[in-house]
Amino acid sequence: MSLWLHWIDLAGIVVFAISGTLMAYKKHMDGFGVVVLASVTAMGGGTLRDMILDLPVFWIHDPSFFYAVLIGALGTIAWLRISHRFPLKFLLIADALGLAFFNLMGLQKALNVGVTPLIAIAFGTMTGVFGGLIRDVICREVPLVLKGELYATTCILGGVAYVAASALNVNLHICMIIAMLTTLVSRLFAVRYHWHLNVFHPPKNLD
Amino acid sequence: MSLWLHWIDLAGIVVFAISGTLMAYKKHMDGFGVVVLASVTAMGGGTLRDMILDLPVFWIHDPSFFYAVLIGALGTIAWLRISHRFPLKFLLIADALGLAFFNLMGLQKALNVGVTPLIAIAFGTMTGVFGGLIRDVICREVPLVLKGELYATTCILGGVAYVAASALNVNLHICMIIAMLTTLVSRLFAVRYHWHLNVFHPPKNLD
Amino acid sequence: MSLWLHWIDLAGIVVFAISGTLMAYKKHMDGFGVVVLASVTAMGGGTLRDMILDLPVFWIHDPSFFYAVLIGALGTIAWLRISHRFPLKFLLIADALGLAFFNLMGLQKALNVGVTPLIAIAFGTMTGVFGGLIRDVICREVPLVLKGELYATTCILGGVAYVAASALNVNLHICMIIAMLTTLVSRLFAVRYHWHLNVFHPPKNLD
Repeated sequence: MSLWLHWIDLAGIVVFAISGTLMAYKKHMDGFGVVVLASVTAMGGGTLRDMILDLPVFWIHDPSFFYAVLIGALGTIAWLRISHRFPLKFLLIADALGLAFFNLMGLQKALNVGVTPLIAIAFGTMTGVFGGLIRDVICREVPLVLKGELYATTCILGGVAYVAASALNVNLHICMIIAMLTTLVSRLFAVRYHWHLNVFHPPKNLD
Repeated sequence: MSLWLHWIDLAGIVVFAISGTLMAYKKHMDGFGVVVLASVTAMGGGTLRDMILDLPVFWIHDPSFFYAVLIGALGTIAWLRISHRFPLKFLLIADALGLAFFNLMGLQKALNVGVTPLIAIAFGTMTGVFGGLIRDVICREVPLVLKGELYATTCILGGVAYVAASALNVNLHICMIIAMLTTLVSRLFAVRYHWHLNVFHPPKNLD
Repeated sequence: MSLWLHWIDLAGIVVFAISGTLMAYKKHMDGFGVVVLASVTAMGGGTLRDMILDLPVFWIHDPSFFYAVLIGALGTIAWLRISHRFPLKFLLIADALGLAFFNLMGLQKALNVGVTPLIAIAFGTMTGVFGGLIRDVICREVPLVLKGELYATTCILGGVAYVAASALNVNLHICMIIAMLTTLVSRLFAVRYHWHLNVFHPPKNLD
């Protein structure tokens, strides 16, 4: 993997670790809880992806990912010591960037293993959203990502854009940029204009 | 694997996907939530089994399983658009069939890896019930399968029947049919006659 | 692995299975729920560790671990049939011993794969605490281990002691004993003197 990709990946890890740390604060957890939630949020999706694809799990032989989690967690703690407020708007934008990149990493890794495009899109989305899903399950929240937020859908859009561009024989690097931009832009629009998915309502005999 | 086994397997996936979709409706989830819950319910048990046994995860190189999930999910959505009621009795019967087959798949795959009969029974049961267990955990329900329903026990019975028949040198195909029928029939009886397991009650100093 | 290590390992499994069984009682589960919770508590952390490190999962080819789980679960059920109280103080001490040993097993296995010390400490802690964490998630409790109990931290202390002793070229067996004693003693002190970690409180705009 080229060096700049590695740096964007680490930046995504930092952002997701921040979101895990904030959740740990919300649930009145201790320092260990912060580390666990930050790690699970930042590395849970990729860990599951690598285990299912039977690839070496990305963080076991490269401690830089773990350092990135600690930077995200300790940075958040330090910030909240000083300010007692958190720039949530900034976090949403950074999170959109992390999501776009995690999605791309999942797509790439799955396609390298030789799966079909549909399955690759599933792996991209899994990489992007499962960390947050596990975070929510540990914290006893019904995962937000399943309840109307236009979040995972932006990963699917990015994946479809990648597959479509690739089917048109677009250059690989352009495909990657198209996938990232599609996810990033659609997620930022969803945040800005409060786009939501419709939620389903149970039939009468199931309520 | 012979072709008809593959078709029964896909039928089991469809049924479990329907049950995941209905749960997503119950929890007011969105379209992505439906896909996640349907996938997790239908493929979670088998995925965990393959990861623990270090086998290639069954769905990554065969998209037909994923299509079966989508058929179950979209079929349920279409049905509920039209009728606003769901044939729960039909679902229970189909679910019993899916359970019987998933249990058999888990038994077979574990025995092929060379584990002992006790561990193979555990893998059969895991294949049958862990998808539903993960579904319930994501949805913040204490898993029904742990609370008195005679469900997982029918997998154990099927596994014991398989191991017993196999110890008596019964032909492999007959063993498989015995295992499936044991699980299927005991599950249908449990549904029909409301058989339940006793639940435990905590000792006084634990309450 | 030498024989006495195997026996201590099995003793740890029995103790963790007891704690899973008691939780199943607390949640009014049935016999299958007892087996699942006892298994997950006792073998969940090690299973996750082996899957992530891509090692053969420790219990699939050695049924003795599964028998240890059954001994812990059935012993607890038998005890509660007779006495209706449970010696929780004894359980806390035995649990500290199990924790110390699970932590050591995780450290050793991770170092054998060639990971860096920081990652090895993470694997030791994961082996010690993830079983209990999954148990709590299944039972819809916010995991106690994340909420101020000085529990996981004793694993980290044991790991740091191991790494420090090993950096000073201390004999491997002495390193192992130092790690176990550090975790065991710090955990027992935490129980005896009610040591707790501070929990965090959310900033105002997150509440």
